[in-house]
Amino acid sequence: MTTHWSRPATKALRADGLRIAELDTSGTPGFKGGKKAGKELLAERTGVLSDLQEKLYANGRSGDPRNVLLVLQGMDTAGKGGIVRHVIGSVDPQGVDHAAFGPPTTEEKRHHFLWRIRKQLPRGGQLGVFDRSHYEDVLVVRVHNLVAPEVWGKRYAEINAFERELVDEGATLVKVAMFVSLDEQKNRLRERLERPDKFWKFSPNDIEERAFWPSYQQAYQVMLDRTSTDCAPWYVLPADNKWFSRLAVTELLINALEGLKLDWPAARFDVAEQTRLLDRS
Amino acid sequence: MTTHWSRPATKALRADGLRIAELDTSGTPGFKGGKKAGKELLAERTGVLSDLQEKLYANGRSGDPRNVLLVLQGMDTAGKGGIVRHVIGSVDPQGVDHAAFGPPTTEEKRHHFLWRIRKQLPRGGQLGVFDRSHYEDVLVVRVHNLVAPEVWGKRYAEINAFERELVDEGATLVKVAMFVSLDEQKNRLRERLERPDKFWKFSPNDIEERAFWPSYQQAYQVMLDRTSTDCAPWYVLPADNKWFSRLAVTELLINALEGLKLDWPAARFDVAEQTRLLDRS
Repeated sequence: MTTHWSRPATKALRADGLRIAELDTSGTPGFKGGKKAGKELLAERTGVLSDLQEKLYANGRSGDPRNVLLVLQGMDTAGKGGIVRHVIGSVDPQGVDHAAFGPPTTEEKRHHFLWRIRKQLPRGGQLGVFDRSHYEDVLVVRVHNLVAPEVWGKRYAEINAFERELVDEGATLVKVAMFVSLDEQKNRLRERLERPDKFWKFSPNDIEERAFWPSYQQAYQVMLDRTSTDCAPWYVLPADNKWFSRLAVTELLINALEGLKLDWPAARFDVAEQTRLLDRS
Repeated sequence: MTTHWSRPATKALRADGLRIAELDTSGTPGFKGGKKAGKELLAERTGVLSDLQEKLYANGRSGDPRNVLLVLQGMDTAGKGGIVRHVIGSVDPQGVDHAAFGPPTTEEKRHHFLWRIRKQLPRGGQLGVFDRSHYEDVLVVRVHNLVAPEVWGKRYAEINAFERELVDEGATLVKVAMFVSLDEQKNRLRERLERPDKFWKFSPNDIEERAFWPSYQQAYQVMLDRTSTDCAPWYVLPADNKWFSRLAVTELLINALEGLKLDWPAARFDVAEQTRLLDRS
């Protein structure tokens, strides 16, 4: 099958130097096909992802400490949940460590902001998913001054040191910031208000936050500029097209897994001997 | 679509009075169709399960403490992993709390046997899955005398009290014991020894345990007799046919979810007002 990618997603979506204010959220960087081709390719690539994830899991069961951690950030309705449901949902749940980070609890607030994050890190062999993450602590926290600027100000460096540590311990981070236009966000919020089966996804706060979009845009820009590192780069995902979001994240995950050059774990037993024992059992 | 069920799975598989020694592990109790009809029905019922699970999750997000907990027990190769991958894998990972229980760690052994179980209980709105569970503490522990008989002997009552508590707090337990014949187990183990991509699933211990099958059968029988209660009944699943296992567990989960009589959560905001605010935002 033609891939329709003119450049790999890892290159086309890399955050380096990108200005969010100039981002076309309806674009499909690097991908030259349309929706139909994208969906067909996704169906095929989903199988590749699933096979690679099983290999990762198999190695984890055999003691390999390496893991892959997908970090999803984005405004309400950007499609983080859809990525979890449709991309992560295509692999074996046994190999997924999923965590969603809402507003911190009273207990969590009494700890360093990375405390609750560390507790949810994926185990070796797992595909971890953070639906929101430690980056909330330099996004919503910064926009609304939930802590003093000298506190959030030093978090960028703390995050970089933290992620360096994770990578040294065997993690591959795939950090994806998803962006929809304000108009597309309005459409998606309207749908939640029109359909009783979507009410539960809506919060009046989602509308209030729209007024802060310029501040968020600035906070996201600083986040990308200061925490997109060589060992844990950010990818910027134009997310107006759900099919493209899913295809792109699938490609990023495949790339991360392929980078591990995984093989099936070797037998830690004598196959011929065990076969004889089995036959007699 | 014809369902091909002559009796609902909840009735056909109910453990009460059943003798494991007489179980036909290749049977499909209550289901009159064959493999093809079973697979077609499964595809349809998977969608039903997924929709119900989303409703459970939506209610959980709105504060409903209720949850559904699938407890899977079975000998090696019985197909527990396949149920997780194919049945649980069909619903949204955000709504799944999955836990697998291996041999207890040194720390876990220093606690009451339910200590590690309590830590993994599903949250409200979640579909919990236990791949092995607290029942290991009256199965492998009993067969190999890992603790004194007076210790494991009182666990049946402790388990019943524990599960009563869970149900009172809003859990619906779906306890499934999966059984394959010794011959079918041999076939499945042989496959793991023949295929290098399956080596990681094999352990020499799997063969050693086959010699203990009579003791396990007895331990399973006592478990069913003593812990299949009205509030948390056991279902016995003949598991030689993977397609039947998956179909049956799907039906049991659908039944549990339907029993909650879930509706979409009502809006906790003024829809018309929010729509106006959105239009102006």
